[in-house]
Amino acid sequence: MSPYEIIATKRDGAELAPEAIGWFIDAFMKDEVRDYQMTAWLMAAYIRGLSDAETVALTQAYINSGKTVDLSSIPGIKVDKHSTGGVGDKVSIILAPLVASLGIPVPMISGRGLGHTGGTLDKLESIPGFQTQLDVPQFQELVSRHGLALIGQTAELVPADRRIYALRDVTATVDSIPLICASIMSKKIAEGIDALVLDVKYGNGAFIPPPEKAEVLARKMIQIGRASGKQVVALLTSMEQPLGRAVGNWLEIEECIDCFHGKGPNDLMEVTLALAAEMVVLAGKAGSAQAARDLCQQALSSGKAWDKFLEIVAAQGGDTEFLEHPRRYPRARFRAELKAGESGYVAAFQTREVGMASVELGAGRLRAEDPVDPQAGIRLHRKLGELVEKGQVVAELYTNRKETLPGALKRLEKAIHIDARPPKIPPLVLKRLA
Amino acid sequence: MSPYEIIATKRDGAELAPEAIGWFIDAFMKDEVRDYQMTAWLMAAYIRGLSDAETVALTQAYINSGKTVDLSSIPGIKVDKHSTGGVGDKVSIILAPLVASLGIPVPMISGRGLGHTGGTLDKLESIPGFQTQLDVPQFQELVSRHGLALIGQTAELVPADRRIYALRDVTATVDSIPLICASIMSKKIAEGIDALVLDVKYGNGAFIPPPEKAEVLARKMIQIGRASGKQVVALLTSMEQPLGRAVGNWLEIEECIDCFHGKGPNDLMEVTLALAAEMVVLAGKAGSAQAARDLCQQALSSGKAWDKFLEIVAAQGGDTEFLEHPRRYPRARFRAELKAGESGYVAAFQTREVGMASVELGAGRLRAEDPVDPQAGIRLHRKLGELVEKGQVVAELYTNRKETLPGALKRLEKAIHIDARPPKIPPLVLKRLA
Repeated sequence: MSPYEIIATKRDGAELAPEAIGWFIDAFMKDEVRDYQMTAWLMAAYIRGLSDAETVALTQAYINSGKTVDLSSIPGIKVDKHSTGGVGDKVSIILAPLVASLGIPVPMISGRGLGHTGGTLDKLESIPGFQTQLDVPQFQELVSRHGLALIGQTAELVPADRRIYALRDVTATVDSIPLICASIMSKKIAEGIDALVLDVKYGNGAFIPPPEKAEVLARKMIQIGRASGKQVVALLTSMEQPLGRAVGNWLEIEECIDCFHGKGPNDLMEVTLALAAEMVVLAGKAGSAQAARDLCQQALSSGKAWDKFLEIVAAQGGDTEFLEHPRRYPRARFRAELKAGESGYVAAFQTREVGMASVELGAGRLRAEDPVDPQAGIRLHRKLGELVEKGQVVAELYTNRKETLPGALKRLEKAIHIDARPPKIPPLVLKRLA
Repeated sequence: MSPYEIIATKRDGAELAPEAIGWFIDAFMKDEVRDYQMTAWLMAAYIRGLSDAETVALTQAYINSGKTVDLSSIPGIKVDKHSTGGVGDKVSIILAPLVASLGIPVPMISGRGLGHTGGTLDKLESIPGFQTQLDVPQFQELVSRHGLALIGQTAELVPADRRIYALRDVTATVDSIPLICASIMSKKIAEGIDALVLDVKYGNGAFIPPPEKAEVLARKMIQIGRASGKQVVALLTSMEQPLGRAVGNWLEIEECIDCFHGKGPNDLMEVTLALAAEMVVLAGKAGSAQAARDLCQQALSSGKAWDKFLEIVAAQGGDTEFLEHPRRYPRARFRAELKAGESGYVAAFQTREVGMASVELGAGRLRAEDPVDPQAGIRLHRKLGELVEKGQVVAELYTNRKETLPGALKRLEKAIHIDARPPKIPPLVLKRLA
């Protein structure tokens, strides 16, 4: 096998044998295949596509490049949830403690925000003291002791994906369905789970907006999970507007606190419960989605979920004072209001642009190495289908960099459309795939 | 402009603005665009293609990356010839002195052999002392003084092409028509010519075997030349068998000596004269192809062409003793004969394989850094359509590495097909394009 042949085969659209893909990734990690050869192959794979068998082989090669977590000594079916990323998507922060509070181990490894999407790690790190950079033994210890861990990528798991993702990021080869699949599924399989619930976003704030394409991605991930003996269920959920009303790290934690206390926005609660119920069923703790939902509702209303959240925050070094008293959290120094230029219904969001306005304010990053501001972000006063009168506040913007306000305001104004007629609201959960 | 956008645009098959391509190549030469970004772009360009405007822009960007030769102080129309490469193609070595002997300046920069094809430089360097690694002032001086120079690539001209070619070579992106066009034409335009004759090979020994594809390549190169104000004519010539009877560096020089003395093989003389006549017409030294051919014939039979060859060899440091007395040249230490296994007509050559057998014997190289053996090679006793009887010699093999003989013999045997019926011989000059 030679790098040249492997590149030329994919260039010409032919299928590579699993061993060829395994060899190629392994040789790359040994620096026998060079970065410039990998990116030529990635571009060929982007344009020509990868078959299911090739994608499974790539996923396995990623996994083989590092360690895998062994959680077999922890009793119970270990279940995780993964989202393809969106704006205002803070589901994990509510869902993971909720599911864990029902006695289901949730070993969750999350990512950071990039581009228009936020990241669970950035949100968690807005809680003072919260540590996400833990190693595999610490991760295992947390899951064993608390039935839950909320950590970031470690250097030990799937290092090939990390090196290759960095190359994809600068060579316009990120949004390829098979490459995304292999990247996501390798990380999830390596973290030691038995089952996985996928939240595959569709709509104008998703990485892959068309529902049909999102469904292709979902089906491919289900297939890869199956090929590794994991149970996988996917929900296609709406990113036609931000999820909930808060966009930005601490703003979203505050909204999560509301959710734990029964005061969360409907759409956020609906998506969280739908995904959590799937996890509970996969874990064998309920015989039906409805029974699972009831269990989740009880865990929320009884305060069990909230207690589990406080427990894990404390266990990971976070200061729970601000969770108990969110008003004590320092505010961003600058604030602006976006007011409605006309009366009518909020008819459409350009969701990606809402995310980019939030990035502009400091809440997100364009490059992986940029820092984020925990206090920056946007609070939406109106969501799809809600009425607003001319001059009323549609959204509030927060930042510590005053100079960003005019640009972010302008961007946000363009991203929120007001119309005389009420819009058709896209389904929150479009489809369930298993 | 960002590397990411430029890569993404080509990835999606859209057309890049000339300025974008110029910026991209310039940024690459400043190390602002990295190797791994260039190869992703090259793969996208390979698969999606480049428009004529993009190819012209790429050619110009290559030229802009280095110096260009200024031959304007030398009177006359400067004409060069370029071949896309073949097996036994020693045309330049006869043609350049021949055309120069008619008072037409021929500033020729040639390449080395790679893979199954030989290279003019390797052949010239088999003449003891012959120097091909000259710089631009030396090149200008030779053309000015002798009306001729036969040198290799210099680091000063089109450095972008050299760096990019090295990446293409290891990422399976060499045989793309627009990338080949830009690479060839940038080098030719930078060397200071006014007009160019292209020998575009077709057939099973050519880089691009199908005549229709070779024609696409030829037309694209003509167009690029025109866009730079150069006159360009192309002939599509046969590589369905080696050109002439000698394959290998000194063996080919010997055959050239025969040509200068009126004893060259018909096919080689025919292609040489057809290309030389085009050069003479482009240089304005004859009104018709036939008149130009007559001038060339006279230059050969009068000895003017031979004298010019001796003159340039001496000027470039070569020892003319071996040219005057080729039998004094040392022979390869080992020799083998390929004998016909049956009687019949030589019906077909797998020309590429003949080239590879010659490489195996030491006459060529698989990697750019490999040395070549000037004495190694193959002498064909039979060519297409010629009769052979069982047991007669079809070819002789020469090498200084005895262990290569069995493999090369076997390869050559498979590459020469004998049949009871005479074959249809493909046209030597299939088409003229201007």
